Amino acid sequence: MYNPAGVKTSPNFPVPELMKAWVLGNPDELSLRDKPTPVPKRAEVLVRIDAVAICATDLEIIHRGSPASIQGGLPFNKNFTPGHEYMGTIAALGPEVDEFEIGQRVSVEIHAGCGQCKRCRQGMYTSCLNYGKPEKGHRANGFTTDGGFAEYAVNHINTVEHVPDTMSDAEATLVVTAGTSMYGLTELGGLVAGESVVVIGPGPIGLLAVAVAKALGASPVILTGTRDKRLAIGKGLGADRVINISEENAVDVVKQLTGGIGADYVVECAGSEATIDQAIHMTNRGGKICLAAFPHESVTTDIAHIVRNNIYVYGIRGEGKSATRRAMALMAEKKFDATKIHTHTFALADLPTALRYARERVEDAIKVVVTTRQTDVLSNAAAE
Amino acid sequence: MYNPAGVKTSPNFPVPELMKAWVLGNPDELSLRDKPTPVPKRAEVLVRIDAVAICATDLEIIHRGSPASIQGGLPFNKNFTPGHEYMGTIAALGPEVDEFEIGQRVSVEIHAGCGQCKRCRQGMYTSCLNYGKPEKGHRANGFTTDGGFAEYAVNHINTVEHVPDTMSDAEATLVVTAGTSMYGLTELGGLVAGESVVVIGPGPIGLLAVAVAKALGASPVILTGTRDKRLAIGKGLGADRVINISEENAVDVVKQLTGGIGADYVVECAGSEATIDQAIHMTNRGGKICLAAFPHESVTTDIAHIVRNNIYVYGIRGEGKSATRRAMALMAEKKFDATKIHTHTFALADLPTALRYARERVEDAIKVVVTTRQTDVLSNAAAE
Amino acid sequence: MYNPAGVKTSPNFPVPELMKAWVLGNPDELSLRDKPTPVPKRAEVLVRIDAVAICATDLEIIHRGSPASIQGGLPFNKNFTPGHEYMGTIAALGPEVDEFEIGQRVSVEIHAGCGQCKRCRQGMYTSCLNYGKPEKGHRANGFTTDGGFAEYAVNHINTVEHVPDTMSDAEATLVVTAGTSMYGLTELGGLVAGESVVVIGPGPIGLLAVAVAKALGASPVILTGTRDKRLAIGKGLGADRVINISEENAVDVVKQLTGGIGADYVVECAGSEATIDQAIHMTNRGGKICLAAFPHESVTTDIAHIVRNNIYVYGIRGEGKSATRRAMALMAEKKFDATKIHTHTFALADLPTALRYARERVEDAIKVVVTTRQTDVLSNAAAE
Amino acid sequence: MYNPAGVKTSPNFPVPELMKAWVLGNPDELSLRDKPTPVPKRAEVLVRIDAVAICATDLEIIHRGSPASIQGGLPFNKNFTPGHEYMGTIAALGPEVDEFEIGQRVSVEIHAGCGQCKRCRQGMYTSCLNYGKPEKGHRANGFTTDGGFAEYAVNHINTVEHVPDTMSDAEATLVVTAGTSMYGLTELGGLVAGESVVVIGPGPIGLLAVAVAKALGASPVILTGTRDKRLAIGKGLGADRVINISEENAVDVVKQLTGGIGADYVVECAGSEATIDQAIHMTNRGGKICLAAFPHESVTTDIAHIVRNNIYVYGIRGEGKSATRRAMALMAEKKFDATKIHTHTFALADLPTALRYARERVEDAIKVVVTTRQTDVLSNAAAE
Repeated sequence: MYNPAGVKTSPNFPVPELMKAWVLGNPDELSLRDKPTPVPKRAEVLVRIDAVAICATDLEIIHRGSPASIQGGLPFNKNFTPGHEYMGTIAALGPEVDEFEIGQRVSVEIHAGCGQCKRCRQGMYTSCLNYGKPEKGHRANGFTTDGGFAEYAVNHINTVEHVPDTMSDAEATLVVTAGTSMYGLTELGGLVAGESVVVIGPGPIGLLAVAVAKALGASPVILTGTRDKRLAIGKGLGADRVINISEENAVDVVKQLTGGIGADYVVECAGSEATIDQAIHMTNRGGKICLAAFPHESVTTDIAHIVRNNIYVYGIRGEGKSATRRAMALMAEKKFDATKIHTHTFALADLPTALRYARERVEDAIKVVVTTRQTDVLSNAAAE
Repeated sequence: MYNPAGVKTSPNFPVPELMKAWVLGNPDELSLRDKPTPVPKRAEVLVRIDAVAICATDLEIIHRGSPASIQGGLPFNKNFTPGHEYMGTIAALGPEVDEFEIGQRVSVEIHAGCGQCKRCRQGMYTSCLNYGKPEKGHRANGFTTDGGFAEYAVNHINTVEHVPDTMSDAEATLVVTAGTSMYGLTELGGLVAGESVVVIGPGPIGLLAVAVAKALGASPVILTGTRDKRLAIGKGLGADRVINISEENAVDVVKQLTGGIGADYVVECAGSEATIDQAIHMTNRGGKICLAAFPHESVTTDIAHIVRNNIYVYGIRGEGKSATRRAMALMAEKKFDATKIHTHTFALADLPTALRYARERVEDAIKVVVTTRQTDVLSNAAAE
Repeated sequence: MYNPAGVKTSPNFPVPELMKAWVLGNPDELSLRDKPTPVPKRAEVLVRIDAVAICATDLEIIHRGSPASIQGGLPFNKNFTPGHEYMGTIAALGPEVDEFEIGQRVSVEIHAGCGQCKRCRQGMYTSCLNYGKPEKGHRANGFTTDGGFAEYAVNHINTVEHVPDTMSDAEATLVVTAGTSMYGLTELGGLVAGESVVVIGPGPIGLLAVAVAKALGASPVILTGTRDKRLAIGKGLGADRVINISEENAVDVVKQLTGGIGADYVVECAGSEATIDQAIHMTNRGGKICLAAFPHESVTTDIAHIVRNNIYVYGIRGEGKSATRRAMALMAEKKFDATKIHTHTFALADLPTALRYARERVEDAIKVVVTTRQTDVLSNAAAE
Repeated sequence: MYNPAGVKTSPNFPVPELMKAWVLGNPDELSLRDKPTPVPKRAEVLVRIDAVAICATDLEIIHRGSPASIQGGLPFNKNFTPGHEYMGTIAALGPEVDEFEIGQRVSVEIHAGCGQCKRCRQGMYTSCLNYGKPEKGHRANGFTTDGGFAEYAVNHINTVEHVPDTMSDAEATLVVTAGTSMYGLTELGGLVAGESVVVIGPGPIGLLAVAVAKALGASPVILTGTRDKRLAIGKGLGADRVINISEENAVDVVKQLTGGIGADYVVECAGSEATIDQAIHMTNRGGKICLAAFPHESVTTDIAHIVRNNIYVYGIRGEGKSATRRAMALMAEKKFDATKIHTHTFALADLPTALRYARERVEDAIKVVVTTRQTDVLSNAAAE
């Protein structure tokens, strides 16, 4: 049995020495393998993964590597396990860890900074200057260290948060996404009650940005996109107005809805040249834009408009400033229902199918969740 | 004599009913006219202009209108007097004004917000949502209300600051420029001591950004540009390193000088596609960029790099958050010598020549100052 | 009829030249008089008062003057009309005002800064350095300028906010109180989701601080007090735990509930030596205390504990940083039900009775509202 | 020789296995002993101590324990080595450390947070919730872990900063004190240029607060105290005005010097009931007070004045938010001359004499420095 030196385990919670884990070979090649169950060090815990959601970034990492630099280059043929939006149960404690107990349910966030660079010391752990250097203590599970498409993963205690009993496993996987939305709103100033917020792009981050903004009292919250079904979900999450940009001019409508001046805050989650341009032109003088997505190529940008209008633009990465903690708090208090974006559930063994659903948006899939607990697999898995 | 109802004047400081003022006709047409001396209202003072510096924006306003919207369109043939970097002497007080006394020397800043919009109430008066609406109380002297190429101007008391006896008239005109540099550093966080700062573009704002950053303890401060003479002035103002980008790769050198990670803060004062691209790529993860200049056309921008590296970009306009006050404080304490960028002085009557020197950079002109006080005209005026 | 020069009125909304107003004579002497209906100036509106709530500060002003300095000394025998928690309908517009229309329902906040001092320019209008100087443009209605125990009052447009149709007059009067609570939480950092918050003192500000903190996702929110009925209302407004300090040791219980370390934020609304001491000792290292109430005498304070634990203490006054706007947004979105603290309603003519209910807490009165619209007087007025 | 596993040493920089260290027995009992040279772990370095300054807190720890809680109670008879204001030379590197090289001169700061609590994650490492728990990774050298009255000490790499060649050993020991002053000014907002600052108490922290405030452009900077000699040193460090509170009423004079309103910022470094009271009453509306000292007993405090005037009070501890880094930057740039507070130097073997000088202020001692490098002992050591 798993019983590494210095690690606290429990007879009530036996952990195997080998675990099942999906491993990335060549691009788009995943295989389910046995891997040694990882060992938590100081300030770390072992998490038994109970559920993991699929993010567009997972698809990208599997297909062409990480948008962030993977240590030593691309992640292919390195025995790497992707997956970063997971939750589970504390299975073992690293040396000196008494902040958690074995058996507690937890959700995670991605980034554990090194704790020893300038940015970490400022509290900016998602901007860790030792990104991708695990030997310095940095972890970005599913990006630069092994992630959640497996039975177990190690997490720094800073990156785990208690899950209340009233929250399902699947909902708890959505805390990472909600945390990214919350981070964006945090950096925009956090005090959005009564302020106008436009969210561009009804993907998971955009949809939960609508939910978080409404939970914090923003008004109006306007969502733009091209797919009516997605916009309808945004309505369900609280959007005061949705704009199908195939049918309406988003900039004009936003100006109309804001007394002619434009929005106080814009959260750009689509990442195209056109939508970035819209974001810039729908923001009012002194307003702020959060960029939560990006185009892979450089794009033409109206810098002059930004400068003339004293607009501030925040490129955000991940879920910094403990934003997942705040997102979890809102979700635990049922301030919004993140499960509206959860559409499908599969067993861990069916990960390839789950990834296909997510990639091809089969049956209008938004968030596809994989679970290691057989009982949680919903009937939709039968669809295969 | 000038003696409007409700306005306090002094027999020791007689003010004429008519003043000389340069007036903009068609583009590039300025003529010296008699205009009624303006009347200060509540919370306003009349300033006798003693010196006024020429800014590149003045040249642009005179040539093709303001980069900001001028009320009712372009400023041509509207009896408009440009000029915004001036200083002078309090000549009359509006009703209820007791914050100043007639005879006091003052420097100015450009923007007096309306005081009744959301941004003004937040302290963001340079982002006033009533920009260009004098009827709402907004003033941007030299942009949307009459400015300083004249014998007198009206200023809101929020936009005047005492000039110490130890400061010359010419130096006091530079407070507006230094205030813009200070505003940029303020928005970047203000606490730049020990942080790496790159300033791109050795124009007046860039050069004084070097001076202000060094005064606040930034280290290293790196200045990039193409003209060696300008870079040498930057050295004189404290730059630890200058980079002639015709000869060296700015991004590479900045990375070398910052342990491979890039600069904490970049102040972009050149406003070209190439330099904005450099700014983005020389900023470290979690770093910040202030855009104090801009290209007139949209430019290709590596948005992905901004998002992936959690970089924040601040488009700044003018000299907000009382930055001129802080700039004046540093200058009054002789923390840096702004006069190193003052190259030429002319009489008010010679404004066209002064503008030509500024526009064509005659004799390597940087800051050209016009004075209404004959004794201050330096011998270089004889150059014409 | 009322028709001052420069003021916009409407035939559909006739305003009398004289209005009924309660006027303060000697301490505790109020009489209902005819007064000229006041005239709005630039950036001001005339509000027909529809409802006004009674605050403990009103009782204090009527009894012994303002806790703040009243211009020229105490308010007695100066024809002064108190009352500051009101709402109503726009009845006339000052010159150039187009931000509002006659007939719109609005709630108010107290402070209109002068707009021309250093603090106002920073956005800190409740700390206006021209407090009590109406000639400089400062207004604190009900404190230094005429307030709401009358048929009409003048307000700066910065101090009025739209009331949605879904909100009753009585509820709209509570926005001022909620705004004070919101200001406190704003200064504590605003991002309270998932943070532990203790509110000390279940008066109106304390009870609404519970409501606002819960609305923003704080958890746990703990309320301390001595009256079980009030604590029960706090429960109803969302408090996760209430502590009757006659029965339990507040500091001990808070530490128990927060893993032994104490609370992240404490909002002190009781203002006694004992509760301030509790606040200090129940705050965790690096935590923050907002003082929203105060004892009239100096009190013994454990300064050492504050310094050793890096605790920050915010003395707040009023409802700064546009906090009423945020409070209104949360209330308009029904994030909490402020009317739970509204207990009694009287007609304007019955103000003395209303004041007695508030002062003596007759029938456990919390918020007593006076209305000028006869139909809104609830049956409880019959209690007299 | 010293050669622990995993630690990098250099043959050019031999380290003994045993070192000399002063060890605390009973209160006020220090003895020079041999101790094993400590071993740096991950992210730690071994520092050969070249100089260490004596702080009033050292005297207190030696006499009655720490103002902060020492792990497991008081520090007596625990083999504890005090001393926290030291500098030295990197002598060995812990595993994976490549941020420093052996032989580099460094100054230190006191607090290395655990890196795994909520406050550390926010960047508030001086408020670490695991204070005093070295097993969690927390260090406060000279407080809860061994300090600098020894030949060697271990430091987390976050707590060491390069010393430029142009700075003497003795000056480098003063960075800790200057860092505390800088932290205070940081928390007050940092942007003090042109703002009025009063420093109360011309001890080392107060005197360097004057120096830092002036370096950042504060004006006027006013210093209050009772000893003319100390006030004169404050003048030398840039104070615009000094007030001997035995001769003048500090509150009155500050008001006079600030146009009647009081100071924007007050840094209280005396820690008595009287001076805290003065601090409160000399701060203007909306102003801020930093408490950098404290009385051991609770004191009578005018809380009402704090609340009525919207004053914020910051109890600060140590040198948080990387303030020593900023202090070092200013000192490296020669923005002020901290050595003006350095009065005496002794050899490490003479620590008891040095402590006596500091405690009894022999020969008006301010900062007494102990050095381990014989050649640095100045002639004043001969005074014994």
